[in-house]
Amino acid sequence: MNDAGHSNVMRPEDTPELRQLYADFEAEHLKPLWTQIDDLMPVVPNPKAVPHIWKWSKLFPLAERSGDLVPVGRGGERRAIGLANPGLGGKAYISPTLWAAIQYLGPRETAPEHRHAQNAFRFVVEGEGVWTVVNGDPVRMSRGDLLLTPGWHFHGHHNDTDKPMAWIDGLDIPFSYQNDVGFFEFGSDRVTDYATPRFSRGERLWAHPGLRPLSELKDTVSSPLGAYRWEFTDRALTEQLLLEDEGQPATVEQGHAAVRYVNPTTGGDVMPTIRAEFHRLRAGASTPPRREVGSSVFQVFEGKGSVLLNRTETKLDKGDLFVVPSWVAWSLQAETQFDLFRFSDAPVMERLGFARTQVEEAAR
Amino acid sequence: MNDAGHSNVMRPEDTPELRQLYADFEAEHLKPLWTQIDDLMPVVPNPKAVPHIWKWSKLFPLAERSGDLVPVGRGGERRAIGLANPGLGGKAYISPTLWAAIQYLGPRETAPEHRHAQNAFRFVVEGEGVWTVVNGDPVRMSRGDLLLTPGWHFHGHHNDTDKPMAWIDGLDIPFSYQNDVGFFEFGSDRVTDYATPRFSRGERLWAHPGLRPLSELKDTVSSPLGAYRWEFTDRALTEQLLLEDEGQPATVEQGHAAVRYVNPTTGGDVMPTIRAEFHRLRAGASTPPRREVGSSVFQVFEGKGSVLLNRTETKLDKGDLFVVPSWVAWSLQAETQFDLFRFSDAPVMERLGFARTQVEEAAR
Amino acid sequence: MNDAGHSNVMRPEDTPELRQLYADFEAEHLKPLWTQIDDLMPVVPNPKAVPHIWKWSKLFPLAERSGDLVPVGRGGERRAIGLANPGLGGKAYISPTLWAAIQYLGPRETAPEHRHAQNAFRFVVEGEGVWTVVNGDPVRMSRGDLLLTPGWHFHGHHNDTDKPMAWIDGLDIPFSYQNDVGFFEFGSDRVTDYATPRFSRGERLWAHPGLRPLSELKDTVSSPLGAYRWEFTDRALTEQLLLEDEGQPATVEQGHAAVRYVNPTTGGDVMPTIRAEFHRLRAGASTPPRREVGSSVFQVFEGKGSVLLNRTETKLDKGDLFVVPSWVAWSLQAETQFDLFRFSDAPVMERLGFARTQVEEAAR
Amino acid sequence: MNDAGHSNVMRPEDTPELRQLYADFEAEHLKPLWTQIDDLMPVVPNPKAVPHIWKWSKLFPLAERSGDLVPVGRGGERRAIGLANPGLGGKAYISPTLWAAIQYLGPRETAPEHRHAQNAFRFVVEGEGVWTVVNGDPVRMSRGDLLLTPGWHFHGHHNDTDKPMAWIDGLDIPFSYQNDVGFFEFGSDRVTDYATPRFSRGERLWAHPGLRPLSELKDTVSSPLGAYRWEFTDRALTEQLLLEDEGQPATVEQGHAAVRYVNPTTGGDVMPTIRAEFHRLRAGASTPPRREVGSSVFQVFEGKGSVLLNRTETKLDKGDLFVVPSWVAWSLQAETQFDLFRFSDAPVMERLGFARTQVEEAAR
Repeated sequence: MNDAGHSNVMRPEDTPELRQLYADFEAEHLKPLWTQIDDLMPVVPNPKAVPHIWKWSKLFPLAERSGDLVPVGRGGERRAIGLANPGLGGKAYISPTLWAAIQYLGPRETAPEHRHAQNAFRFVVEGEGVWTVVNGDPVRMSRGDLLLTPGWHFHGHHNDTDKPMAWIDGLDIPFSYQNDVGFFEFGSDRVTDYATPRFSRGERLWAHPGLRPLSELKDTVSSPLGAYRWEFTDRALTEQLLLEDEGQPATVEQGHAAVRYVNPTTGGDVMPTIRAEFHRLRAGASTPPRREVGSSVFQVFEGKGSVLLNRTETKLDKGDLFVVPSWVAWSLQAETQFDLFRFSDAPVMERLGFARTQVEEAAR
Repeated sequence: MNDAGHSNVMRPEDTPELRQLYADFEAEHLKPLWTQIDDLMPVVPNPKAVPHIWKWSKLFPLAERSGDLVPVGRGGERRAIGLANPGLGGKAYISPTLWAAIQYLGPRETAPEHRHAQNAFRFVVEGEGVWTVVNGDPVRMSRGDLLLTPGWHFHGHHNDTDKPMAWIDGLDIPFSYQNDVGFFEFGSDRVTDYATPRFSRGERLWAHPGLRPLSELKDTVSSPLGAYRWEFTDRALTEQLLLEDEGQPATVEQGHAAVRYVNPTTGGDVMPTIRAEFHRLRAGASTPPRREVGSSVFQVFEGKGSVLLNRTETKLDKGDLFVVPSWVAWSLQAETQFDLFRFSDAPVMERLGFARTQVEEAAR
Repeated sequence: MNDAGHSNVMRPEDTPELRQLYADFEAEHLKPLWTQIDDLMPVVPNPKAVPHIWKWSKLFPLAERSGDLVPVGRGGERRAIGLANPGLGGKAYISPTLWAAIQYLGPRETAPEHRHAQNAFRFVVEGEGVWTVVNGDPVRMSRGDLLLTPGWHFHGHHNDTDKPMAWIDGLDIPFSYQNDVGFFEFGSDRVTDYATPRFSRGERLWAHPGLRPLSELKDTVSSPLGAYRWEFTDRALTEQLLLEDEGQPATVEQGHAAVRYVNPTTGGDVMPTIRAEFHRLRAGASTPPRREVGSSVFQVFEGKGSVLLNRTETKLDKGDLFVVPSWVAWSLQAETQFDLFRFSDAPVMERLGFARTQVEEAAR
Repeated sequence: MNDAGHSNVMRPEDTPELRQLYADFEAEHLKPLWTQIDDLMPVVPNPKAVPHIWKWSKLFPLAERSGDLVPVGRGGERRAIGLANPGLGGKAYISPTLWAAIQYLGPRETAPEHRHAQNAFRFVVEGEGVWTVVNGDPVRMSRGDLLLTPGWHFHGHHNDTDKPMAWIDGLDIPFSYQNDVGFFEFGSDRVTDYATPRFSRGERLWAHPGLRPLSELKDTVSSPLGAYRWEFTDRALTEQLLLEDEGQPATVEQGHAAVRYVNPTTGGDVMPTIRAEFHRLRAGASTPPRREVGSSVFQVFEGKGSVLLNRTETKLDKGDLFVVPSWVAWSLQAETQFDLFRFSDAPVMERLGFARTQVEEAAR
């Protein structure tokens, strides 16, 4: 933080009196600011979390092996394997605020019901056959779907087929843990409803564009729509690119279509701490480097391309996940049509007044 | 307003001095409150507007005849015939706040473009073939659709077929006129785009449940979704009744499904002064008498039934319109499955703190 | 509305068929738009209300005479004399939305308690000695004070002295009447508390800058602070002009200080339909002509100056009131330091999306 | 977290295969949830931070000694000594979200200007003579005052007297550091204005109850009122207790008056991450034990009493500070009239949907 031109008058000479003062601070549970300010108050965010990429080709086989070795059930609750940011000292945090995991459920298995203050979602990059039961409402999980479990909603999962299924979980566990906001309660050891309807009750009430049931006029903190189906996401992105072809404003920037998943009662984010988006790049398109306050996680849904994180470019394949810590410049390059799911802690940053974005001139 | 038990001390004796005082008031443009308070400040709303029913079987032939006799074009702007509440002294006001009209466009005709501060919508009870062009975006009009023209959006209509078409217009003209908020500007004498796409650009960007384009993150006062298609409305109502069959909470009350049309950027009403809803009653169902502050207009979309307004019951057929003035008790009875479109000034009442509702015990 | 360049194709030839059509419209309670659109949808607001000035030197003696001739009491409720805009056909409306009246209470008189949905306030241009009791809380009324009676709050007044007192009342009676939102209920024939405290309970809880009682954390539609004292208003305006002298941004424009009275729970307007402000011009200062959607009323509190309404200038003295209808250009010129109270329907315009302002280049 | 009645099926047998799986997780930066869920997702918040009390009688002499030994100036920026929660591993965090420090400025010293994204305030328990210059506006600091430095406002301090002065600083440094939202910029090495006005420009514009300058109508994220004077706080609390004496609702509970410091543009908290309050208990009064999500810090301003934290009671004297971690039950007992300043991270909890409160039956 120190400019060359600034003297640092507050590094006093190391005298016995100063040592005694510092020892007396310690005894009274005190720490001076002047010795730590460079670390505590950096010029720009200086995250301990690092950019990192996890390959789906490694994740999925490990999840499969845990399916063989670790039974799912009460106590451990979920066969979920957290992505641990290499910069965060071995905790299962993908960023200081976010948790991302691959969860695996074998044929006919059930993950028992519970609820917690932490907000959660699932996103399905491949497979089908599992239903998640949220406050008693069975929700089908299929490729491309985003499924919500907002804070304090009971939920369990069951696999209705003879094949295993894996997906990713996103939660605000690190944020909740760090800030001591977590509550947890066990529910039924089995799911409360083993029905396997094509559409959940939440969808049947809420998944009608521009319409709101008159029986549900109170706005809710989190979205009452528990499932965002791939069919709609795909169609919305397709239309944006078609509109762009017709010369109409519709995309974020040339060749880059994107949607945000929203709470239909407010038009805002699906949950108070987590934003979810889906991005599609045309083959050959790229995005300018962006720095944002807060962290996000991307998963490649389909296609081939690469990501530039700070100055390092990495090839990406279907299912690969990567994390962008706060203020790390990121940009995407699409080799084929390139589809990515994204989630982030942006609602935290916006609601607390910390959001900033910097879009740079293209780096190459 | 006067209870029997109250003396009225403020009816002073009729003396020459009092007469002179009243004459002097008049000369100075003054009016005493004490002689008018009963009228000005009633115990409950005492609307001059009366409940009234217009039969589609009368409206449509009159619209047809005006199609023969009155050309559409610049100056008069629209071949629209306003429903004039019999209590409102001959003005084309269906209520103190709302305008409702039947508009008619002959084969290949064009209604020229203009814009105004007044908020407007169209609802189509039958027919097809007209496109309304809103800020340059052509919007198909088909049976069951709600089409918006929020304040200060340019709009014109053209009939692309060899058949005439009629629909209803709803606006806040009386409110705007009364409160002197109107602005008006002519646009193109023809519509700016004669294309006839199945879906408007607004729909292609916005009609995806729970999704919002990343290119459009600013909330808007009125809905950016210009067309609410019958297909979605019908499906939402159908699902509510199916959920009710399954014992799930979904309907307003037994046998009464309903949706509100909303602005997807906020979850609130489609326009700042006008609420739009669609109601479906099962055959045999009825609604308890309700009094509400503010006025509304219903149009029967399909089915047979009746409405009780104050204590008068009237049979209703497809296309029939009726107005419910403020604090008039209304209830619906369905003979067959009974579908009704409704619009009202409820957003005005809610935003200004005047909303009240009273649901009465069933009257029979 | 018709530009010279536009034909008016919709003025069809006057044939027997057309006459019959129009007669049939009439029989069915229908009115065509094309014959009325110029009136109903003007290019800019075309208010029936006219700018008008009422002289305090005339108003006060008339109020005094009514004090002699008309007893105050139950039934008539208030000895209030409404200012009737000469353009509004003899109704006691100062504008289409607003009511303004001079109210007069003789020595030791009581105006009985009642409540109504209409929002009300009092502003005191001279005198003292009356307490208004609002929901049981006695509120002193003194020169320069703004006192609120939000909708559905019980209120009565009593004069605790041997001298009469007069003040102005502002309400949304015309708006409420026009839109049928009024409810009214009698309360006690006497006021419920004849105490004469210097400060009301509402002030004791709320009139502390930047502080909110922890016992009152729910935001309220109208301000819980029932009295805005002259001492604070005067000090705020004085400071703005001193800051301007110091070269700091603080005034609306050179020589023009102003405050808005706000609801401390939200920072917004004191009541949902009525805005209240106080303006101070330095001697010699003037304001550029402004047009605004919506109407306002000013009362001169102190000093001498004039107002330009459209192109007519009028001298103003203490107590004089004038109304500015929608979109009428107004500007103030100060001869001495010039203090004016203002109230308007601006919250209605803003909440319903109709607000527009145009500041013109100085007219002279 | 495990109930006695629940088996823990997810503690699989320790086999070579399992060990290999866990090693392979490690190599791929993965961590299973099932081995950590008890820690990560507790039944109720289980903070690492502990309740702790710092005595002013110890703090102040240490601050004085640092005044002798450590010069203040550029680089270290502030002679501030942070209170380090004994449970948080030696960091200068009083809680996971909050920073509290004693800051000391010797006679005629200046702390240079800088700005940062972190939100800050000062509260003065004793002394006077320092001005803090916030975005160029000199703000006097006197006993009982709360002074704000919202995020990204330039600020420096200078002591205008020949006596030292100490006060407490509160910031969201831990939250900002943890979530990587910090930005920092040096400003002037001296303060930009050495004037010593009694009232800052912010106060002169904004410290008028219920009034808002017309030149400042845009709501701001943080309060534009930079100083909350003791005179007003004291008066507000005094009035609440007098109202309670009169049998009126005004206090939080019997004998417990309290105010929240608010942003006058919104009525909400002064800054997006920090809530500030002042509490006064009558001699002999106590508060029922409360658990709240989120952490707070209290400082005794005047009087004698004690605090019960979990089940430990501690006597408190003027200037003593204590921290209440999340979900720790706290209650206050007043020996004399007992005045305490409080700040907390409650806005974070409320804006993100995590707020919960539990008021227990009195513990004794």
